[in-house]
Amino acid sequence: MRLHGFFRSGASYRVRIALAMKGLPFEQTSYVLRKGEQRAPAYLKMNPQGLVPALELDDGTVLTQSIAILEWLEETHPQNPMLPKDPLERARVRAFALAVACDIHPVQNLLVLNAVRAIGQTDAQVNEWARRVNAEGLDACEAMIAHVPGPFCFGDQPTMADICLIPQLVNARRFGCDVSGWTRLLQAEAACMALPCFAQSVPELQPDAE
Amino acid sequence: MRLHGFFRSGASYRVRIALAMKGLPFEQTSYVLRKGEQRAPAYLKMNPQGLVPALELDDGTVLTQSIAILEWLEETHPQNPMLPKDPLERARVRAFALAVACDIHPVQNLLVLNAVRAIGQTDAQVNEWARRVNAEGLDACEAMIAHVPGPFCFGDQPTMADICLIPQLVNARRFGCDVSGWTRLLQAEAACMALPCFAQSVPELQPDAE
Repeated sequence: MRLHGFFRSGASYRVRIALAMKGLPFEQTSYVLRKGEQRAPAYLKMNPQGLVPALELDDGTVLTQSIAILEWLEETHPQNPMLPKDPLERARVRAFALAVACDIHPVQNLLVLNAVRAIGQTDAQVNEWARRVNAEGLDACEAMIAHVPGPFCFGDQPTMADICLIPQLVNARRFGCDVSGWTRLLQAEAACMALPCFAQSVPELQPDAE
Repeated sequence: MRLHGFFRSGASYRVRIALAMKGLPFEQTSYVLRKGEQRAPAYLKMNPQGLVPALELDDGTVLTQSIAILEWLEETHPQNPMLPKDPLERARVRAFALAVACDIHPVQNLLVLNAVRAIGQTDAQVNEWARRVNAEGLDACEAMIAHVPGPFCFGDQPTMADICLIPQLVNARRFGCDVSGWTRLLQAEAACMALPCFAQSVPELQPDAE
């Protein structure tokens, strides 16, 4: 399999963790987002959205949208599950994952930040937009699991919730959020980072890290 | 079951369609979003994100995030499936649904439009932001299914993809998009609107419609 992504893309990071968790080897092709390489015609043929990541299977089939890729990996490679078995627990894990994937990540990605800059905002104001989106979003995430037993987001095994949380915490720190109040999120992060599948997937260890 | 939502909320609309498709009766509680009713303390206890929809089950259990609710409905009420059986086809349907739910809807919802207004944009400029997000996002959606047989987004049965598309087309028109070029999306819309589960779920037929 080949992951088309970028070391700093949070959505690519999710898929790296999931592939590692499932024990699946993969190669990477890198697209420098700020140069718009993900909008080149050859890539748009694979993914008309012009967004990373895309997962290319060995037969050339291309899957897009990180959460859809995670669900596909879970359905086709059931070892080391990313979702619990009980439907209600699955719904809770997915709700947390989607709170990150829908309501935080896309509102602070490069496309939106460029649009905010294009309507006359300074670099500092653009950063403040991204900081606020992360702070408000992760405040809600902290509340969603405040009373759920850990150490991971949902119990004693990492799930899709942790796979979405960990990359978002990287962004939150990058944009200057004070993360210290998110004690439950930090507990989950510490538990995750002790696992090789998370530790080897961090942006700075990827071949295209700058 | 009780759906906590708002007639004009696209994410609430998705859940209305899915409940109708599964043949499940439900009551509705309405939250006027522009008055911030979804941020009242009683609602935040149910959903710390302060967003609609939330689905309250008869035992008081509350589910949040529309896509997580759809997945839960699919797992617990398998009749009239919203996803195909084949994992690759499921991945394609989910990718389309998430292209709407992650990359269009949250970037043009009331929260973000209020934030755009707060950084000094006029009503016309705010509308242009929303129009552009819908236009670019639905252009990509059109490309994603341009060569997929219809009449629905993916074949001869409606799926989660249609359930996400139909409410987004309502928004696209509201913000002034020229929808006429999206021939494949319009074909899917026409097929959907001929079905009672879609037709009865439109915003203007809900009890809280203004």
